Amino acid sequence: MNTCRSVVEPIFSVSTAKAFEGLFTQGSGYMHIRGSLEEHLQDAPQNITYHRKPANVTAEEFPAAKAKWGTYVPGVFDPHPHLGEEMINLPFFLGLTPFIGGEKLDMEASLISEYRRELLLYTAVLRRSLKWVTRLGVPVGVKFERFISAARPNLCVQRVTFTSPSEVPISVRAGIDADVRTNGFDHFVGVDMAHVGKDCLKCTVTTNGGDDVHIVSRVIAQGASWALEGKDRRRDLVASLTIPCDKPLVVEKRSAVSTGRDLCPQDPYAVLTETAHIPYEVLLDEHAAVWKERWKKADVIIEGDDTSQLSLRTSIYHLLRCHVPQDDRVGIDPKGYAGDAYCGRYFWDTEIYLLPFYLYTSTESAKTLVDFRVRTLPAAQANAARYGYRGAKYAWESDTYGNECCPSANWQYSDHQIHVTADVVYGIAHYAYATRDLDYLKGPAACVITEASRYFLERVDRRPGDDYPSILGVMGPDEYTPISHNNSYTNRMVSFVFDLASKVGKHGGASESECRTFNEIAMALPILRDETGLVLQCEDFDRLAEPDFGKLWPDRGKPFASQVSQERLYRSKCIKQADVILLMVLFPHEFREAEIRRSWDHYMPYTTHDSSLSAGIHALVALRLGLAEESWEFWTRTSEIDLPFRGGDPSAGIHIAAAGATWQVAVFGFGGVDTAMQSDVLTVCPRLPKNWHRLAFPLMWHGCPVFIDIRPGECRISNHGAWELKACIYNRLCSIPTGQSVRISVP
Amino acid sequence: MNTCRSVVEPIFSVSTAKAFEGLFTQGSGYMHIRGSLEEHLQDAPQNITYHRKPANVTAEEFPAAKAKWGTYVPGVFDPHPHLGEEMINLPFFLGLTPFIGGEKLDMEASLISEYRRELLLYTAVLRRSLKWVTRLGVPVGVKFERFISAARPNLCVQRVTFTSPSEVPISVRAGIDADVRTNGFDHFVGVDMAHVGKDCLKCTVTTNGGDDVHIVSRVIAQGASWALEGKDRRRDLVASLTIPCDKPLVVEKRSAVSTGRDLCPQDPYAVLTETAHIPYEVLLDEHAAVWKERWKKADVIIEGDDTSQLSLRTSIYHLLRCHVPQDDRVGIDPKGYAGDAYCGRYFWDTEIYLLPFYLYTSTESAKTLVDFRVRTLPAAQANAARYGYRGAKYAWESDTYGNECCPSANWQYSDHQIHVTADVVYGIAHYAYATRDLDYLKGPAACVITEASRYFLERVDRRPGDDYPSILGVMGPDEYTPISHNNSYTNRMVSFVFDLASKVGKHGGASESECRTFNEIAMALPILRDETGLVLQCEDFDRLAEPDFGKLWPDRGKPFASQVSQERLYRSKCIKQADVILLMVLFPHEFREAEIRRSWDHYMPYTTHDSSLSAGIHALVALRLGLAEESWEFWTRTSEIDLPFRGGDPSAGIHIAAAGATWQVAVFGFGGVDTAMQSDVLTVCPRLPKNWHRLAFPLMWHGCPVFIDIRPGECRISNHGAWELKACIYNRLCSIPTGQSVRISVP
Repeated sequence: MNTCRSVVEPIFSVSTAKAFEGLFTQGSGYMHIRGSLEEHLQDAPQNITYHRKPANVTAEEFPAAKAKWGTYVPGVFDPHPHLGEEMINLPFFLGLTPFIGGEKLDMEASLISEYRRELLLYTAVLRRSLKWVTRLGVPVGVKFERFISAARPNLCVQRVTFTSPSEVPISVRAGIDADVRTNGFDHFVGVDMAHVGKDCLKCTVTTNGGDDVHIVSRVIAQGASWALEGKDRRRDLVASLTIPCDKPLVVEKRSAVSTGRDLCPQDPYAVLTETAHIPYEVLLDEHAAVWKERWKKADVIIEGDDTSQLSLRTSIYHLLRCHVPQDDRVGIDPKGYAGDAYCGRYFWDTEIYLLPFYLYTSTESAKTLVDFRVRTLPAAQANAARYGYRGAKYAWESDTYGNECCPSANWQYSDHQIHVTADVVYGIAHYAYATRDLDYLKGPAACVITEASRYFLERVDRRPGDDYPSILGVMGPDEYTPISHNNSYTNRMVSFVFDLASKVGKHGGASESECRTFNEIAMALPILRDETGLVLQCEDFDRLAEPDFGKLWPDRGKPFASQVSQERLYRSKCIKQADVILLMVLFPHEFREAEIRRSWDHYMPYTTHDSSLSAGIHALVALRLGLAEESWEFWTRTSEIDLPFRGGDPSAGIHIAAAGATWQVAVFGFGGVDTAMQSDVLTVCPRLPKNWHRLAFPLMWHGCPVFIDIRPGECRISNHGAWELKACIYNRLCSIPTGQSVRISVP
Repeated sequence: MNTCRSVVEPIFSVSTAKAFEGLFTQGSGYMHIRGSLEEHLQDAPQNITYHRKPANVTAEEFPAAKAKWGTYVPGVFDPHPHLGEEMINLPFFLGLTPFIGGEKLDMEASLISEYRRELLLYTAVLRRSLKWVTRLGVPVGVKFERFISAARPNLCVQRVTFTSPSEVPISVRAGIDADVRTNGFDHFVGVDMAHVGKDCLKCTVTTNGGDDVHIVSRVIAQGASWALEGKDRRRDLVASLTIPCDKPLVVEKRSAVSTGRDLCPQDPYAVLTETAHIPYEVLLDEHAAVWKERWKKADVIIEGDDTSQLSLRTSIYHLLRCHVPQDDRVGIDPKGYAGDAYCGRYFWDTEIYLLPFYLYTSTESAKTLVDFRVRTLPAAQANAARYGYRGAKYAWESDTYGNECCPSANWQYSDHQIHVTADVVYGIAHYAYATRDLDYLKGPAACVITEASRYFLERVDRRPGDDYPSILGVMGPDEYTPISHNNSYTNRMVSFVFDLASKVGKHGGASESECRTFNEIAMALPILRDETGLVLQCEDFDRLAEPDFGKLWPDRGKPFASQVSQERLYRSKCIKQADVILLMVLFPHEFREAEIRRSWDHYMPYTTHDSSLSAGIHALVALRLGLAEESWEFWTRTSEIDLPFRGGDPSAGIHIAAAGATWQVAVFGFGGVDTAMQSDVLTVCPRLPKNWHRLAFPLMWHGCPVFIDIRPGECRISNHGAWELKACIYNRLCSIPTGQSVRISVP
């Protein structure tokens, strides 16, 4: 195991404070909290009310702020007046602030040295240590540490340790601040704060949608006497303490959270009481043990390139964090529960970008994600009916019930980006094929597949003069061509749905004649090509205006969309993200290499990569095409997108789809593994970058755990499963008996 | 003069109450009030708060209500939280309610006979007479009459006359009700009500945008003693009176209005004081005298067809009413100030549908309308800048300052329906050519023309492989094809702008080289045709889905758009309104008759006429094509759209653009007059319908008043101007000396 075990913030800077705050997000699945400073920053109010309008998030400018708190319990959604249902930013309960001689610890104003903050990836612990020379001249050592317990997902545990060469009086303030907003809006219609017992603070907020959220914090410090301070929506417990000269002063804060929507309701006060006598270290150990199990199934080792190792492991950390254990009422939002820019809703990112990681590392997590779609079928049916259509149309932006939350001002996405319904079915199929849970397709998912097909039937048109059916008026993955015809990606995905429905639709209530129709259309939906054989993104894409990027896009550091109007985007041949290229990633065997190369050359000059979903997909295709330089460029773009010290910016949250894509590039790209959608046999054809000495990772294949260990020129697969496994390595078919491994060298 | 002088409501029915309320709207230009009942209806609250969302108004369903009050002062705009700036529905001050024996006069509950309500078109007076048999059995005659003084535009005068065969005690309640909403929103942040003097009620409201509106009502009845009643936002003056058996009891109510934005601020109390000693009849006479002058310049006589006469005259009544004297800060809203469905904003309807009526009947009114566009140039420049463009882009929905008020949810209209800017320039040119005020183009309007062209330069794209420039990504007049390329209407109109700018642009600051560019593009912008010569609405219109109207449009009485989703509209070959057909109306000499016929045949099956702007334009083309039946059908559709007894529905307001189109069909269509945009010489080639014995109307031609009198087979033109006039009648050129007339028979 190599040394890239933590992400480090070596010095504190206000300019990157919000980025590290996003990057250092911790979570248990049940809840997630951004990596905010315990004592907060000055001049960074979190109760600013502003009017966020529905917009293209890519081009949107968010209010400037030094810090942005974020405390989320997935699934706690409530109505925003303009944006629709959104995930609520809950009260901030990490507050733990030392004062010495009246001076507050302040990362900007205080004299700080020996600063280091790090997120321990393997244990999901956030640590900060620093030396604080107070105005009185005393050097005080301060160490913060915190984790959200993976073993007790409702529990957040914090500790701060003070040391000093001489005895120093110190006061500590531990609070809950409910004066927060979500996207500038105040969702709390009721806030109730109370001092419970001697050392507990209790906060209950009632949201405008009727959700109740309870937070109890207990502060623990030997000999401390806690007094209540604060008013309105903020309360602190304050104690005067002393740092002895001979040993550390330790203050702990433990907080527990519950909401009215919990699957297993727990009284947060009881959670604290139950754990009151468990020492910090024991809580930490049980937490770390859970994470250890997670990493065992998912860690990807890269040797020879610490930067890639660190970025990939950071991606995996966040993917593991976002895992929502056994709760199919929620998915994973595009900001990885590290921000509310996308209102905590669920998009197609889930199926196409995130699901593969879970499918091949943790079957249960993957099932939870596809079960979410099965469970929300009724909302998708209601959504189709809203358009006057039969069947089920999955929401572009789904809340926990599956309702379409896309604001009406963004109708072009919700009305026309219909591929999301096909992506949902693709994800379901991918689950079934990858896990070999084929009965799933005939069971609960069959209705989804049938209903999706019935919806798509409504979207198929036959134009006079054409000898093929068409899907008209759609937005493909490229959101800069809002209403186009026969988008190749959409057509192929819909064709996939029809084909699957023709086979399993009867289990979902489809008649034989319906199944025949599904089959006919599946066969007939075209992938349009021009006279040179170029796969067309859609009809008439080439009749749009040539964008003069040189003139219109002066600042390449920001998205193209932030520098031109939407109107210009919509009349220009500019592409937000992989579209035809994504099609070729999902169905690689249907396109010859020359054809892929032709698409690459044709569309690349128009592709802005404004979307974080773009780079990873391009890396995958570049690897297929043997474009070493390009694949490396896109690999670093996708893998470093959230590393502030590599130019990334997770201020508004983690680009969790890019994290998923990063894993896919590592495993499917460099590792050369075919997905279960592409091959029935475990097929591996590695393409290691020159500087990598080793790439190794565990994988679940058809329910069988394997370990794939790639070194230059060779690949070893170990079968940790209970049955013999067939594999195809470097195009050589072999069998791997249970408990054994096979090593194949490059032919 | 024939007998069609009034629109009559012969019986009262709740089912048509709101329609007649719209139809009977009165106004002075300064203010407009819907034809609501003085005593109101029961169960028709006007203070319902609801959430109106931005939507396609054509497909929108408005809250059901028996009655809808509307009191508007054009230009009083204030912000609505979701809809943007909107015209405010002001307090209702017409309230004048009799009670006899505790029984309120109630059109539904009372025993009513001999009912008749009529709007006297020539004098703009609304009269209602009825016999009310009270519960006590006494038959009481009631006659309401009211007018908004054209001579004193701030003044509204009401009178009610009671008669009875025996003496009857009666109480009368005269009030002001400020508890009203505009589109479901309460704009009033302050309401102040006071009893002033003995007989006056004063109401001042302050809007959320900071506008102050003052209303003072005085009640006049011999021997009455008025007491104040009511609370909150409603106040009434109440008096107990007696209807003598030998003579009528007359109660008058006079109300005056002022706002903080008035050009000539008047104290409304002073207005009432000044007119206190002027008898009702005298006020009526001076009002009627102004209307008489208006009609002299604008009445169109139809003999042989009373239905057409009445519908046309009703249209003209509303066009005359909407005339805004000398105030270029306002235009005319699509509901003719008889409803707030379009928020009182100004659209392209002004230039293309309304302006011709004013141009050829009242030069001053026409100038006010084009001056509005010149005055609001700065807002149009700011609007273009908002897109990152040079020049001026006129707002799709303009407020009094010219600001774009189209809600962001309707971005497809504001972003893509760019023809509005060309329509504005067309209107300016039409004004200059029709009035021969050619200096206008070199004077204040030159900047508009230059800036419009600079904006359009930003919208011209040159695609590789094309030998012509293109305008991409537009919505033409047909709003069901939201983003299309080279829309023929838009291209031709923009070409018109470039051509004009190449000639007069230098007066607006354009350089010689700019003017050359304008000229080049004007020449090169294409009107696309297919291989058969068909003028294309836009590129690829024919690649949209065939709409199955038979299946999708079960209720032809309602718009197609109300029965399918917007998503289906946008992928289907369905047309909201005249598009290519409108192009052919504006530039008739550029298209051969066979070409027009081909367009008619091709586009008609796809045209839904969902827009009220459609029928009139189709009537004009049908007349050109000699399609008698079709022209008649479209004539009745456009002219009867607001006549409830002919199937029309002005509930939500007057379709004022259809009224303008109705006048155009009469004069340009049946009358066969070429516009000044089409001919420099007054050209008349009548096409009388079979049943019409006569069609006669005054017209201002190049500043010269003429009277055109058409009878079957002949046409007489009288020159009432100060100079000899050339004319071309039935293709025969002639000269008409001043004061004389020329009669030409069909050759």
